[in-house]
Amino acid sequence: MPDSPLSGPALLARIDALAAISAEPGRLSRLYLTPEHRRANDLVAVWMREAGMAVREDGVGNIVGRYEGDRPGLPALLIGSHLDTVRDAGRYDGMLGVLSGIAVVAELHAQGRRLPFAVEVIGFGDEEGTRFQSTLIGSRAIAGAFDPAVLDKRDADGVRLGDALAAFGKDPAAWATAAYDPVTVLAYAELHIEQGPVLESLDRAVGVVSAIAGATRLAVTVDGFAGHAGTVPMTLRRDALAAAAEMILAVETLCSGAERLVGTVGRIEAAPGATNVIPGRVRFTIDLRADRDALRLERVAAVRAGLAEIAARRNVGIAFETLHESPAVACHPALMAQFAAAATALGLDAPELPSGAGHDAMAVAGLTDIAMLFVRCDRGISHNPAESITAADAEAGARVLARFVDHFQPASDRAP
Amino acid sequence: MPDSPLSGPALLARIDALAAISAEPGRLSRLYLTPEHRRANDLVAVWMREAGMAVREDGVGNIVGRYEGDRPGLPALLIGSHLDTVRDAGRYDGMLGVLSGIAVVAELHAQGRRLPFAVEVIGFGDEEGTRFQSTLIGSRAIAGAFDPAVLDKRDADGVRLGDALAAFGKDPAAWATAAYDPVTVLAYAELHIEQGPVLESLDRAVGVVSAIAGATRLAVTVDGFAGHAGTVPMTLRRDALAAAAEMILAVETLCSGAERLVGTVGRIEAAPGATNVIPGRVRFTIDLRADRDALRLERVAAVRAGLAEIAARRNVGIAFETLHESPAVACHPALMAQFAAAATALGLDAPELPSGAGHDAMAVAGLTDIAMLFVRCDRGISHNPAESITAADAEAGARVLARFVDHFQPASDRAP
Repeated sequence: MPDSPLSGPALLARIDALAAISAEPGRLSRLYLTPEHRRANDLVAVWMREAGMAVREDGVGNIVGRYEGDRPGLPALLIGSHLDTVRDAGRYDGMLGVLSGIAVVAELHAQGRRLPFAVEVIGFGDEEGTRFQSTLIGSRAIAGAFDPAVLDKRDADGVRLGDALAAFGKDPAAWATAAYDPVTVLAYAELHIEQGPVLESLDRAVGVVSAIAGATRLAVTVDGFAGHAGTVPMTLRRDALAAAAEMILAVETLCSGAERLVGTVGRIEAAPGATNVIPGRVRFTIDLRADRDALRLERVAAVRAGLAEIAARRNVGIAFETLHESPAVACHPALMAQFAAAATALGLDAPELPSGAGHDAMAVAGLTDIAMLFVRCDRGISHNPAESITAADAEAGARVLARFVDHFQPASDRAP
Repeated sequence: MPDSPLSGPALLARIDALAAISAEPGRLSRLYLTPEHRRANDLVAVWMREAGMAVREDGVGNIVGRYEGDRPGLPALLIGSHLDTVRDAGRYDGMLGVLSGIAVVAELHAQGRRLPFAVEVIGFGDEEGTRFQSTLIGSRAIAGAFDPAVLDKRDADGVRLGDALAAFGKDPAAWATAAYDPVTVLAYAELHIEQGPVLESLDRAVGVVSAIAGATRLAVTVDGFAGHAGTVPMTLRRDALAAAAEMILAVETLCSGAERLVGTVGRIEAAPGATNVIPGRVRFTIDLRADRDALRLERVAAVRAGLAEIAARRNVGIAFETLHESPAVACHPALMAQFAAAATALGLDAPELPSGAGHDAMAVAGLTDIAMLFVRCDRGISHNPAESITAADAEAGARVLARFVDHFQPASDRAP
């Protein structure tokens, strides 16, 4: 008897086969609407058909397999993730979710089982936004939230997205056909590697996502007074970098101690930037995320007030610019409970954790209820060839997803 | 009766005339061994001759005027500073010292007075090192410390220094002729703008320099672990920038509270340097200066220990590289006392302060005893077109220098 499609080695063999489809030898780079995208969709379509699914490619290049329920035409549980990658990517980000969904259906098909609802597995063509600098194109399209303005975006070679769609064999005017009618959809589930170290630190294979965190990004400019590093006594300085250092520690402090809240200063520039000159101006960024908007907004206000107090005390100027603001997207509690129950039934404890990164589920939340299952990855490393998971964890994730599908009930407030 | 050469307006008129000699219209840039250097030397030579001096240009392009004492061939008190500038410079840095020296001699000459020693005024051709990235070429040469290796240095256009000397009319092999025989020299005095805010903060026109500070420059590398700004909880981070921020504040704290000690972090780089990525590596510089070497070395050790403790507590790596190390150069106490007495005699209080910046006097200290008089400048701004002093302060400085020359006594331990 052959291995189950849900087995870890079977899943990782397919991961490796898919990772071989790349624009660059020796490293994985697979961008939206490229020949590599075409080859990946073709391979995924083969696997979908082998799993008993009817396959179509929608108007924006998403590949979709449908496994009918116990009668044709029933509303569907959607399972999806993305097939595109960043440049020099890892091989699990996105792909693991698509292949796990196919494996779940393949197992049903091998057992000759039908469920009281259809299952559709979707491989989104663009989540990362690597080629056209616009993320979530595939999932926005199925949610009816595709922005036609992106048709005019151009890649690094000057190719228009609309023209790339045509070259991929799509009618650029037909993007709206990718959208689902909400009455045909019951929910959306996405399995994804965690891309963070929480599950590893808790020694757990899988976790249930509570929400995709909301984010605020600020640019901060601190204006002091430049001076010669040798001639200005400490008491007469208005050192923009010393002030910024105190502010960076304040961000760390104000974003610590609350659950599911993080704050990061990722970029910093000090001007004029010479060893022997006191910095007169420093610019840095703050990225603050939380799975509850109220907490995030309260902490953003606390950070702004705390930094303004430091600036006033040090007699330096401070200015804030909001670069980005996005609300949190909650996973549906009833679906979270079904994921947790599925894990428990398999002897696994699946802790709740927020997703700090964005995912296709964010966009699909505009269409239907969402839920996400995270799979542990090595040291949280992602968007990097060192991205890694174990075969055992891949299998654990797929089996929890399969159990979730087996026992799936639409959330009561959404059910027809 | 014409104004005294020591009057503020007379000095500033010559400052302006000299500042008009520039490689660039509208901003002052005058580099070593350029046509502008030639024109500046020629103009300074005119003023030196008008002041009764015999003028020569030495083997490295310094312009030197000699005013004999009460009989020819007496050992000389040297008064000097530099005529070269940084790019887009201020007009007082260097030039004020040369023109004040000429004015002091012009006043003696106008009064038909001779002193029991000769006075030589030197306009050094290179102090800033702007063209060949090697500072103090002129003053090193007169001190017999010219390094012939710099003859092979090249400017941004690829011109060798040795060839530039030849184009300037010098025999490139004759640099050694610039050196003074120590027995012909009694001391060296330099008047210079402070380039710092101390005199302004004390409401004093002039100050007596205690020493040119020693300096230690370190490069610090902090190695944490990069990660996604959204997915790594605060408790699981090894954020290199948060660690560096704590270190920058420690530098500030450890270098505060001690007299004549300063510490500066002037450069910082965080990698990978994206808004949404926790910095994995940060590099920054430390510039630590003090007028006492023991204090400086003790604080460098304290900074290294303090930063290592922070690194250990935060579980990040730290590495130090020493970029530069120079000892303090003391001014001679007897000459300092003569400068202070000269100020007192003119009704001025001249506080002692260290020089945090380097000056020609540093190099000349290898030849003879040195002393420096600082003149207050606006907000400490220097190396900038906004560099500014008042006519009253220019006159105060020149008159203190004149009184110092009038009453000059060689330091007893150096006198023949």
